[in-house]
Amino acid sequence: MILTVTLNTALDLTYRVPSLRPHSSHRVTEVTERPGGKGLNVARVLAALGHEVTVTGFTGGATGRVVQDRLTAVPGLVDALVPVTGPTRRTVAVVDERSGDTTQLNEPGPTVTSAEWSAFQEAYEDLVPAASAVALCGSLPPGVPVGAYAGLVRTAKAAGVPVLLDTSGEPLRRGVAARPDVVKPNADELAELTGSHEPLRATQDARRRGALAVVASLGTEGLLAATPEGRWRATPPTRVHGNPTGAGDAVVAGLLSGLVERLPWPDRLARATALAAATVLAPVAGEFDRTAYEELLDRVTVTGEVSAA
Amino acid sequence: MILTVTLNTALDLTYRVPSLRPHSSHRVTEVTERPGGKGLNVARVLAALGHEVTVTGFTGGATGRVVQDRLTAVPGLVDALVPVTGPTRRTVAVVDERSGDTTQLNEPGPTVTSAEWSAFQEAYEDLVPAASAVALCGSLPPGVPVGAYAGLVRTAKAAGVPVLLDTSGEPLRRGVAARPDVVKPNADELAELTGSHEPLRATQDARRRGALAVVASLGTEGLLAATPEGRWRATPPTRVHGNPTGAGDAVVAGLLSGLVERLPWPDRLARATALAAATVLAPVAGEFDRTAYEELLDRVTVTGEVSAA
Repeated sequence: MILTVTLNTALDLTYRVPSLRPHSSHRVTEVTERPGGKGLNVARVLAALGHEVTVTGFTGGATGRVVQDRLTAVPGLVDALVPVTGPTRRTVAVVDERSGDTTQLNEPGPTVTSAEWSAFQEAYEDLVPAASAVALCGSLPPGVPVGAYAGLVRTAKAAGVPVLLDTSGEPLRRGVAARPDVVKPNADELAELTGSHEPLRATQDARRRGALAVVASLGTEGLLAATPEGRWRATPPTRVHGNPTGAGDAVVAGLLSGLVERLPWPDRLARATALAAATVLAPVAGEFDRTAYEELLDRVTVTGEVSAA
Repeated sequence: MILTVTLNTALDLTYRVPSLRPHSSHRVTEVTERPGGKGLNVARVLAALGHEVTVTGFTGGATGRVVQDRLTAVPGLVDALVPVTGPTRRTVAVVDERSGDTTQLNEPGPTVTSAEWSAFQEAYEDLVPAASAVALCGSLPPGVPVGAYAGLVRTAKAAGVPVLLDTSGEPLRRGVAARPDVVKPNADELAELTGSHEPLRATQDARRRGALAVVASLGTEGLLAATPEGRWRATPPTRVHGNPTGAGDAVVAGLLSGLVERLPWPDRLARATALAAATVLAPVAGEFDRTAYEELLDRVTVTGEVSAA
């Protein structure tokens, strides 16, 4: 199985309103509710691709119970979330039907105690040996030490399990130093990590900081990868328009599934790029359009060079 | 006991954000959560005043369970909510910390089936005979017939139990025609009902439409009452500043508690006015400041005239 870690799980609410006007009252015309947090999104895509996935991280309160009820309904997905006293956060995406724009409101998440953090680490250590790969995804809830991901990377590496890290800021900086197999920053996260806004230079720099492979997601321009085996750029066939929510998580799912299937890097990158584009095209935020994915997969362009042995 | 009816119960969330900017992402700095819907707010104030209160209406899904858990914790309050399949709605008040302004997002509420509506009517008929007074409060969820309150008013009157109606639009118009003992519109609701923006004329007109007594809540200007016993105006001692959320519900609680204690109208109006002002002054939205209430009670001005016998 593939193990995904979501320390700051969420219940993602989407509210459609005719037009968002600050300081007035709105009747929400449509409400949708789904489990959220990057690692859960990654797990859902992996399950849809036919992989067995176990999700861990934290769950608490009534919102946490809703998240778990929904996860249990996903075939191929096993819930190994660890209970905390504080309530799992909600995120609210307010979609303005007139402009199509989204206003996002994110609750901070539960404050995790040191005993709860220790309990999670133990649960994680028990899960890792059975995993073919681990994904560490998203922000840290209050109370979790900033070096958390560095420790979780080390645990996976000590068990000989490949580990991918997808986070930002100081947790990313510290996590990279622990030498994860893959990091997947977006352009902003990469620039923040390296100080360079030039993606080619920045991916190389991120490798020097400790990441074995760096796959930068550059939005509509596709992916840029710097790995021990070579450097590649993967580009979708057309510039797709739609909702980019979850596209980065689809990239992570594509990379991980390709990793455990031992695909060559260019094939992993093509899959990740097609999944991201098919997620942007899907009518439901965060889902991917399977027909579009299969149609796009052969049309992704991957160019690059293999490293000298 | 006093019975309050809240057909569209809610879980009221308050999100504080440093500054609300449409089409961008916000980290919520503080989240508060409480049961909502006008009838539940009225019940909480009545319970705080020492009355035994039973709440009914609808509850559904995970959000409904949270509402019920919170209600059970209120001393003096009995939960007689009727289950529905659809989920109880959430409301989100986004408070901009810089301006102090609030942006409100209200979910529509569960769609109530005709079988669920029948089950509620039966439960209501069983509860009414034991009540000293009934309050019918707030909007109707989808699926409940627009004449719902008219029927509930008639049931209470047939049982000889005084009934107060606090709603708006067509449900108010139909409900008033069923001759409730008291209606408590605000200025906008009163104007919508009567077509008149002149409160004195409009309160008289609302009586002609069927309400035995009309108490209009005019915000910082206090209350205007037209009753069979006379007409009065109640004015708070000072123009209070704060959060008006729940002030109208405090008025309803003041009027109802005065009714069951058989206070003369001027005393009921003074109590309702002081409770409303003490709610605006309270630091927590929808609660009332007891010290402020007791201090304000003697300082409310009630002027008016008793009707000729």
